[in-house]
Amino acid sequence: MILILKTGASEDQVAHVIARVEELGMRAHLSRGTYRTIVGIIGDENRIREEPLRAIPGVAEVVPVLPPYKLASLDAHPEPSVVDVSGVKIGGGNLGMIAGPCSVEDEDRMFRIARSVRDAGANLFRGGAYKPRTSPYAFQGLGEDGLKLLRDVGDRFGMPVVTEVTDVRCVDLVARYADMIQIGARNMQNFVLLTEVGRTNRPVLLKRGMSATVTDLLMSAEYVLSQGNPNVVLCERGVKGFDPATRNLFDVSAVPLVQTLSHLPIIVDPSHATGRPDLIPACALAGVAAGADGVHIEVHDCPEVAKSDGPQALLPDQYRELAAKIRQMAELLGKTISPLPQALT
Amino acid sequence: MILILKTGASEDQVAHVIARVEELGMRAHLSRGTYRTIVGIIGDENRIREEPLRAIPGVAEVVPVLPPYKLASLDAHPEPSVVDVSGVKIGGGNLGMIAGPCSVEDEDRMFRIARSVRDAGANLFRGGAYKPRTSPYAFQGLGEDGLKLLRDVGDRFGMPVVTEVTDVRCVDLVARYADMIQIGARNMQNFVLLTEVGRTNRPVLLKRGMSATVTDLLMSAEYVLSQGNPNVVLCERGVKGFDPATRNLFDVSAVPLVQTLSHLPIIVDPSHATGRPDLIPACALAGVAAGADGVHIEVHDCPEVAKSDGPQALLPDQYRELAAKIRQMAELLGKTISPLPQALT
Amino acid sequence: MILILKTGASEDQVAHVIARVEELGMRAHLSRGTYRTIVGIIGDENRIREEPLRAIPGVAEVVPVLPPYKLASLDAHPEPSVVDVSGVKIGGGNLGMIAGPCSVEDEDRMFRIARSVRDAGANLFRGGAYKPRTSPYAFQGLGEDGLKLLRDVGDRFGMPVVTEVTDVRCVDLVARYADMIQIGARNMQNFVLLTEVGRTNRPVLLKRGMSATVTDLLMSAEYVLSQGNPNVVLCERGVKGFDPATRNLFDVSAVPLVQTLSHLPIIVDPSHATGRPDLIPACALAGVAAGADGVHIEVHDCPEVAKSDGPQALLPDQYRELAAKIRQMAELLGKTISPLPQALT
Amino acid sequence: MILILKTGASEDQVAHVIARVEELGMRAHLSRGTYRTIVGIIGDENRIREEPLRAIPGVAEVVPVLPPYKLASLDAHPEPSVVDVSGVKIGGGNLGMIAGPCSVEDEDRMFRIARSVRDAGANLFRGGAYKPRTSPYAFQGLGEDGLKLLRDVGDRFGMPVVTEVTDVRCVDLVARYADMIQIGARNMQNFVLLTEVGRTNRPVLLKRGMSATVTDLLMSAEYVLSQGNPNVVLCERGVKGFDPATRNLFDVSAVPLVQTLSHLPIIVDPSHATGRPDLIPACALAGVAAGADGVHIEVHDCPEVAKSDGPQALLPDQYRELAAKIRQMAELLGKTISPLPQALT
Repeated sequence: MILILKTGASEDQVAHVIARVEELGMRAHLSRGTYRTIVGIIGDENRIREEPLRAIPGVAEVVPVLPPYKLASLDAHPEPSVVDVSGVKIGGGNLGMIAGPCSVEDEDRMFRIARSVRDAGANLFRGGAYKPRTSPYAFQGLGEDGLKLLRDVGDRFGMPVVTEVTDVRCVDLVARYADMIQIGARNMQNFVLLTEVGRTNRPVLLKRGMSATVTDLLMSAEYVLSQGNPNVVLCERGVKGFDPATRNLFDVSAVPLVQTLSHLPIIVDPSHATGRPDLIPACALAGVAAGADGVHIEVHDCPEVAKSDGPQALLPDQYRELAAKIRQMAELLGKTISPLPQALT
Repeated sequence: MILILKTGASEDQVAHVIARVEELGMRAHLSRGTYRTIVGIIGDENRIREEPLRAIPGVAEVVPVLPPYKLASLDAHPEPSVVDVSGVKIGGGNLGMIAGPCSVEDEDRMFRIARSVRDAGANLFRGGAYKPRTSPYAFQGLGEDGLKLLRDVGDRFGMPVVTEVTDVRCVDLVARYADMIQIGARNMQNFVLLTEVGRTNRPVLLKRGMSATVTDLLMSAEYVLSQGNPNVVLCERGVKGFDPATRNLFDVSAVPLVQTLSHLPIIVDPSHATGRPDLIPACALAGVAAGADGVHIEVHDCPEVAKSDGPQALLPDQYRELAAKIRQMAELLGKTISPLPQALT
Repeated sequence: MILILKTGASEDQVAHVIARVEELGMRAHLSRGTYRTIVGIIGDENRIREEPLRAIPGVAEVVPVLPPYKLASLDAHPEPSVVDVSGVKIGGGNLGMIAGPCSVEDEDRMFRIARSVRDAGANLFRGGAYKPRTSPYAFQGLGEDGLKLLRDVGDRFGMPVVTEVTDVRCVDLVARYADMIQIGARNMQNFVLLTEVGRTNRPVLLKRGMSATVTDLLMSAEYVLSQGNPNVVLCERGVKGFDPATRNLFDVSAVPLVQTLSHLPIIVDPSHATGRPDLIPACALAGVAAGADGVHIEVHDCPEVAKSDGPQALLPDQYRELAAKIRQMAELLGKTISPLPQALT
Repeated sequence: MILILKTGASEDQVAHVIARVEELGMRAHLSRGTYRTIVGIIGDENRIREEPLRAIPGVAEVVPVLPPYKLASLDAHPEPSVVDVSGVKIGGGNLGMIAGPCSVEDEDRMFRIARSVRDAGANLFRGGAYKPRTSPYAFQGLGEDGLKLLRDVGDRFGMPVVTEVTDVRCVDLVARYADMIQIGARNMQNFVLLTEVGRTNRPVLLKRGMSATVTDLLMSAEYVLSQGNPNVVLCERGVKGFDPATRNLFDVSAVPLVQTLSHLPIIVDPSHATGRPDLIPACALAGVAAGADGVHIEVHDCPEVAKSDGPQALLPDQYRELAAKIRQMAELLGKTISPLPQALT
């Protein structure tokens, strides 16, 4: 860590800075420049990262040298991690193809959609039983009935299932039914929930918050990892932008950026990123070309009656066409769409 | 609600749109323009707000006419609400002056800080016992011990206390000790937590999320209100910006904007908005001048050893000076700093 | 255009709105909803687009029905435009591969870089002779000497050249030397410059401004088109974002979004979008996969001595590797990298 | 300047970094930490600020120690500057009250508006003769006729006038008629225009660009100052935000932030910042309370027929009421609204 002192910091202030650094068990290395004095702190940066060094009188700026996450970093695990979701692999050259409706709805519809996305090439089925809705008057999901139905679909079609948890009191319940637990964008910094999910042994799909930097996202992953659960898959799903033409701003550069910093797989969700079926296929392909480890797409067979997010769903036929293109691109890039765990197809 | 159809929408599509609207129990009023057909929907907009109308084939855009919140709106309550926090009033000409350290720390320090801010004119004492920290390795708060200590401080100095809740399982516990419950920015769309807090009878301080529009903020307030708890105070504390010079971007216009839309009081938190003690006083005064119903400031007597957010704390003397200026400005604007509930001072 | 009146708009206000609409030569179609009155305006929206309708008393909101650009729209030209830059085609399945150093520097270096990018597959050579630098103390470009040198390079290697114009007084000069004129991001809304460039017959490379919506970008293109110059190529080069990890935020969704709205070609510039050589290849491929009509990359053979933007330049070898991957992806997508105009290679 | 080297930078790289630094005429001071090596550069940072140090192999990050502007900094001029606009003072405790219509329109209207704002307390009259419009089809201003009319209004009512220049070829013409020259937000980084305006002796009103950091704004001021024109007044007028409820996001914290960095006066423009008459007064007062050196407001006596920006204009009566409140607040803060230069009122 480096402390840049203020122009005109007094000798007393310099001495106090050094004393404070030594109190914290580190050594200080002074460098007096033409205009400013700089204090290099020598020792384990992690031990003092959370100290309010910028509040020491005379300190103008604190420049960390190491990233604030450890387990999520490439230092901890130099090779890309492969997360196994009940037999389907994500990361390290394996693409996860997650598809399904926004909300779990009635059984017939679930079966129809699941069959269509499985036949198109999806290897994970998604559906929300607990929906974090902006409005208290909107459909909030089917709850445990939805979880059961989702499990049935998964078993019937041989697809592992992923669903969101929003309430810390439901983590065990969700972990019982789902193969992978999703933390939604609005809960990316719900640290209590991250901690509880980290105590399960279920793979976690962690969506990037709308105003989270990539470092913030990796810090949230660190919450899960630090509880002993190493199976985190990150998901870029659009950040807040200023152009009302799209629901969010799809930050495709987050994919290679994460890969320079972390071993964790990262997939893309162009459905939420754009909110527009006419832009989803192009953005899905962009994500794969950028190196994403999977693609998350919402699919519904009758969007105009969907219980949530209908306007951004792809139709089954649109999904089939897109999945075929993703397959071709995966081949070009030397990647594999992880097959379904059992030969049930 | 207005549906703008796509250029070249077919007659079949128009007929289907009308049928769909009528199925939903509304009437459709067609207006064929030079280029586009527009369908005005007549009936109670709230009944169809959550329907996926934009997913109906041929529909290009859906324009709502009413705001999506009800209880938070001026229609529901045309006069400004006054929230009473154990005797201290916020709103309707009464300023809440919330001050205290970021985290609850040791007793001596709490007492010292509380005395200084009370003497300076604060009427509510703050301190976090449960801290939502970006890093799992950072100080997470003293928990229930912190709550007890905070209660002691409040009782000793005659100041109602406000503290954050981050875990839905702790809502009752926090409500037992605190006069006002804070929902932090990162939990503004933790709808489960909002719902539980709405079930208590404690006033709620609801902080705006970093990427939340004012409508989003009011929708989160609606969650609390719709559970039967009418005592919500909103708080502008900076949104995500692109200039690294400040921690966040203080959106002072949110104050008058809320007042054109809602009866709920809104205060400002320039500590989190700027993250810089040298900018906090100017932004606090700006907030009051813009019409804010209170000011939330973090104060610490030795920021360089604070357990969290030290670098953004004002010193007690700086707070005293600022509070004096706020008092003068309040007078100019015809507002009152609500006195402490008892003559304990 | 639709006018949504305020709740409680008086009959006098309604009558005045109608009168004002008719004064402007349009017809008004009234629709009284349950809560609000809506006025559909019938007639040529373009004639009244710039009228301050929102300032008419009683009007709450104005909802346009048509896009504000005409010549740039798909209505004006339903097929994708192909822009011919002295024999190199961009658009309609043809990829422009623009490469070269940020600034024109000395002749030897220019020749070396040009040879390497041409051999790698670039079909347009770039280099700035007039540099818009944030600092008045930074290198501002070689001026006309730079233009001459750029022309020499183009002639010697058979590559059309593109260079930026920043001063309206230099437009003719630049047009004399360059095959394509670039308008930089900071000048995207320099309407005087757009107008002058629109009066030349040179193809224009129009870069998106850092806070411009796609509509803003198309409106700037409209300035050029409306002067009679139909040869505009748009360029996504990153918008302002909140994550300091990258220089800008690469908005890859702008590529398919433009294609739903306009016939103009759009290319991507991952060099400026990310500012990081380690992210440029992934983002370049993402752009092509999303449907971009070309890729703009800065290349330098010794970035540490480059006169500008060295830290974001690819080395010639890195460019060669990337160009090979772009070629493979182009093939997969059925696109062609437009060959050099003459068999000089 | 500090160079942070990459983890694992080789000894050869370290040696090359040092050699490169010395080649540039500076000295390098090495500090080997537990994880990383840091190189402090000793010497005049300004001489190497524009060198591509981040492109040197092995360098991870470059941390500047000094701000990139000189003449605009407090080092160059520790006291607040006072800019004299033909007798009206801005800065150093003097408030500039700029008011007038967006565009110069017909003479009668100009006279009516000028009289009303002068009587309300404005001390500078504004009006655009050259309008930078998003659409090529919108009213572009009256040009030189507008300038003449504006001059007449100024002379008649004894108010200095301010007007925008958009074309480098018109700088002398505008300087002939106007007392103060405005550079609009969209031209804040039109460096050619800044340079030309810097060569006149007219005070310059420099508006912050929509995606400009405060450092960017000060760098643009530096362009003007470095040409010999010291009379620059900065203007915060809203940056790009994500909430469509307001036209831009009013960054009131820019006012005190500028004052910690620069001696230049800074005023606020809540008209463009919010785009909403119902929010303008609150934001104007917020700006003054935050320490702004003036307030820029658009006023029109019949917004529904204004040639531009009608929907955001205040009516003369609304301006009078606001100006009275600003006067009271100025008094409270110990500031003066600079009187008109002559006793013509």
